[in-house]
Amino acid sequence: MAVRVVGFDGDDTLWHSETRFHVTQAEFRELLARHAPGADIDTRLAEMEMKNLAIYGYGVKSFTLSMLETAIELTKSSIPATDLEVILGWGKRMLMEPTELLDGVEPTLRALSERYDMLLITKGDLFDQESKLARSGLGELFLGVEILSEKNVETYSRIFQRRGINAADFVMVGNSLRSDVVPVVSLGGHAVHIPYEVTWQHEHVPEEEMPKAGWSRITTIAELPALLDEL
Amino acid sequence: MAVRVVGFDGDDTLWHSETRFHVTQAEFRELLARHAPGADIDTRLAEMEMKNLAIYGYGVKSFTLSMLETAIELTKSSIPATDLEVILGWGKRMLMEPTELLDGVEPTLRALSERYDMLLITKGDLFDQESKLARSGLGELFLGVEILSEKNVETYSRIFQRRGINAADFVMVGNSLRSDVVPVVSLGGHAVHIPYEVTWQHEHVPEEEMPKAGWSRITTIAELPALLDEL
Repeated sequence: MAVRVVGFDGDDTLWHSETRFHVTQAEFRELLARHAPGADIDTRLAEMEMKNLAIYGYGVKSFTLSMLETAIELTKSSIPATDLEVILGWGKRMLMEPTELLDGVEPTLRALSERYDMLLITKGDLFDQESKLARSGLGELFLGVEILSEKNVETYSRIFQRRGINAADFVMVGNSLRSDVVPVVSLGGHAVHIPYEVTWQHEHVPEEEMPKAGWSRITTIAELPALLDEL
Repeated sequence: MAVRVVGFDGDDTLWHSETRFHVTQAEFRELLARHAPGADIDTRLAEMEMKNLAIYGYGVKSFTLSMLETAIELTKSSIPATDLEVILGWGKRMLMEPTELLDGVEPTLRALSERYDMLLITKGDLFDQESKLARSGLGELFLGVEILSEKNVETYSRIFQRRGINAADFVMVGNSLRSDVVPVVSLGGHAVHIPYEVTWQHEHVPEEEMPKAGWSRITTIAELPALLDEL
């Protein structure tokens, strides 16, 4: 194929995200264990997030609201407001943290930007994603930014159509099999999977359900330029 | 001018939004008055929203988080978790309510869609706005949907550029002088202001600071087709 356009996922592909949710969730577990000893806090929070996904969508604000609701439910409303204020503070901290790039991202993207049109194609909260991109210092490298509420066949095709992209010339790079690999391959594009150290359960796809061809896996973004040369 | 593309704001232009915030805020006032008699609850909430805008952005989730923080602060953390759970429930109710169109919106948009390219250009939470549009039944009438974190000269020019729109052929229709009128007029487009029954203080622009030309005011969307004919 003749690679012309390269799409990049943001969270956990260019910058750390999931580890931050994990750090906050560990604090949440510790705080709640004092009020509800023995409760399976992680499971209850995960269930709450899934229940609320259709109402809130993805992102830190949604996560914060689900933590608050879980805390109130799990403690049968006995949790003091001071503790809920602590949870509100965690949400703000997550939204304000500096964008921490993954190893090798900046030099690799700078080099690639001279050879390909690059798009940031990310999912989640509009305001939070724009703010993270602004703080990343990578903004000028992208020809365009697409922030979607879901990454699926429908939303990718809309981007291809609007931007006049031929799927056969397009490569998507990301850490999620579900959001970055499967829909792009099924549209005829190529996908490059770069696993992150932690995967949100929601984004997991069993290996045997993955398409047989049309995608590659590398361990770090530094391997991407050589792979694109081979495609 | 030869009007080719018409952009429409969503909240309080096509469907009711601000009145719903007002309804919830009245309930909030009543709930808090029990815990903090005599406090100026509206002012405190407005201040909290402004303080949090740079962290949370716009939308119902942001509003809910600001209500919770105001409730905790105003009551010096004495508010019981049961009341905070009530506030969480208001947020969900707002996010799930059916999209209630303003009078005349549907027939007017159907008629105009046969003569002009129509865009929905709205501000706020990505997930919430997409969900409202889906529930509005108007989705198919728009050639494209742009959900922005802010509506200003920069974000409108990006849309013009990406969609190949000549500002001189573009009319923006909305209820906010600050977001729908001022930036479009300064880019050389025409704007049509349709005041809504309530204006969020944040969106207000003093009449004497408004541009002298380049925009019109009508009282209901039903007057729009005739106005576009005259432009």
